[in-house]
Amino acid sequence: MQWFYVASLLTILTSSQGILTTLSQTNGGYEYDYATVPFLAEVFKLIVSSFLLWRELQTSPLPRMTTEWKSVRLFPIPSIIYLIHNNVQFATLTYVDTSTYQIMGNLKIVTTGILFRLFLKRKLSNLQWMAIVLLAVGTTTSQVKGCGEASCHFLFSAPIQGYMLGILSACLSALAGVYTEFLMKKNNDSLYWQNVQLYTFGAIFNMARLLLDDFKGGFEEGPWWQRLLKGYSITTWMVVLNLGSTGLLVSWLMKYSDNIVKVYSTSMAMLLTMVLSVFLFNFRPTLQLFLGIIICMMSLHMYFAAPNMLVELPLAVKAAPDDRIEVSVD
Amino acid sequence: MQWFYVASLLTILTSSQGILTTLSQTNGGYEYDYATVPFLAEVFKLIVSSFLLWRELQTSPLPRMTTEWKSVRLFPIPSIIYLIHNNVQFATLTYVDTSTYQIMGNLKIVTTGILFRLFLKRKLSNLQWMAIVLLAVGTTTSQVKGCGEASCHFLFSAPIQGYMLGILSACLSALAGVYTEFLMKKNNDSLYWQNVQLYTFGAIFNMARLLLDDFKGGFEEGPWWQRLLKGYSITTWMVVLNLGSTGLLVSWLMKYSDNIVKVYSTSMAMLLTMVLSVFLFNFRPTLQLFLGIIICMMSLHMYFAAPNMLVELPLAVKAAPDDRIEVSVD
Repeated sequence: MQWFYVASLLTILTSSQGILTTLSQTNGGYEYDYATVPFLAEVFKLIVSSFLLWRELQTSPLPRMTTEWKSVRLFPIPSIIYLIHNNVQFATLTYVDTSTYQIMGNLKIVTTGILFRLFLKRKLSNLQWMAIVLLAVGTTTSQVKGCGEASCHFLFSAPIQGYMLGILSACLSALAGVYTEFLMKKNNDSLYWQNVQLYTFGAIFNMARLLLDDFKGGFEEGPWWQRLLKGYSITTWMVVLNLGSTGLLVSWLMKYSDNIVKVYSTSMAMLLTMVLSVFLFNFRPTLQLFLGIIICMMSLHMYFAAPNMLVELPLAVKAAPDDRIEVSVD
Repeated sequence: MQWFYVASLLTILTSSQGILTTLSQTNGGYEYDYATVPFLAEVFKLIVSSFLLWRELQTSPLPRMTTEWKSVRLFPIPSIIYLIHNNVQFATLTYVDTSTYQIMGNLKIVTTGILFRLFLKRKLSNLQWMAIVLLAVGTTTSQVKGCGEASCHFLFSAPIQGYMLGILSACLSALAGVYTEFLMKKNNDSLYWQNVQLYTFGAIFNMARLLLDDFKGGFEEGPWWQRLLKGYSITTWMVVLNLGSTGLLVSWLMKYSDNIVKVYSTSMAMLLTMVLSVFLFNFRPTLQLFLGIIICMMSLHMYFAAPNMLVELPLAVKAAPDDRIEVSVD
């Protein structure tokens, strides 16, 4: 049941992420360069994992560490997938608005299930498949625009390219997750050693992205290392530490649990954020949020509850002596 | 599987009911007195059932018919419950708008499940309970007001009395259904004889209602029998025949199947009507309709599919020879 606690903690931290990010804004905008946050989070994860690996190296037996290039070269792949994903995301947003993009993002729940089945060869029962579809439906329901809001969700009102790119984006996002799970489970290497490899490449790719932004912007705001901590408040640091911590928890889940648990965890976090926003930011609770929560709770129960608990009929109920009702089964 | 065909036919006819009623309007209003429709439908059902009973009486063995007052006196009860229900409905609508009332109407799916369990002592598995809740959630989702529509569905924005009466209304509606099922199944009497009793009282109560309307309106539009066929078009007659036919199908289901099948049938009809409206009346399909349909389909499958089909894992998939993925079950 250890995975349950890790997943719950991930839900709480992922949910805090959205709230901390909102709190870190000043007058609705960022005083710091948001692109520096994921870079620092990668560095934080790298430092934590290196420290834990170093401590593990002091004990016996020594942790298992595969250092051949044949294995190490697989670790930049998740970063590369995320890089492609970011570009597809950018392209998608030229066709659809952000709120439609957010709605389509729920597709990654289903694509994760599919790739989980195809690439990791994990079997799911029909009920579990239904639960996965319902989880995506539930999160989408909670995001349906209410009356009075500007942008409408009519079906297929954006150009077809937008939907195709949205599907591609969902597939890439799922692929990154499933590939990471494959990487973490492919051998018995120490989790910390795997993390060190993963985050070294993560930090490098994030740094490259910052540098690319510099070139694109013609160094108008100076090189990235000059903007790195500019405008950082305590809340910004909390955003960094929080993002780093969720990353470490996801790594743990990828090795000792799986992608579906992660998907449930982050979906629940999304709902939790919306509920907390009602209290913190005075959002009005909508009917669709309430419905979305019920659907996701049902899905959670369908996926994780013991099958016999779900389908067995309760023990026979004592019938009244004059009970003449015929119980037809047709 | 006979119940499946009857239920499907009920879905189609119930769905046509909404569409025919819309088509029977002239410039958005009724040229006929709508209150006369249910009365004529009761008369139609009574005529059909009497004819079928008469035909049954020509055959041998003779149909079973309990004619003691002790049994007959139970048959006006559904009509009485509906009468109370109509008044509660009227009271509810003084507190909430029609669209909130429609949303609360989905509660009757859940109350039907509860009364079905309590009064008819029918057992449901956890999965079936979840399916019933999801059916209510799914129909509600499809009805969530989109952006640009006037009335908003915020949670608990109406007075508490409105919600209490809404719950009472859902209970009464469920009670009428469950009681009718009890009545039809309590002995092996001929269905047609049971129908004749049911519809005789139904016709009487509907006639009383028309008369009451006359008194309330001070006979300004003359007695009800003068308005009875006034303004009736072919479409109005189709509305009457359609309503009568759905009533006969419901009776059949109450005797040979059950209330839950009926609830699924009419919920699916509601969704079918919305889909048909997209084509017939140029309604724009909304995201919430699409989500509602998925949820209800899942619910249908969860409730009716064979349990072992749902929870069993598919046969082992042939793993590639170099497959080194550890399948952890934690």
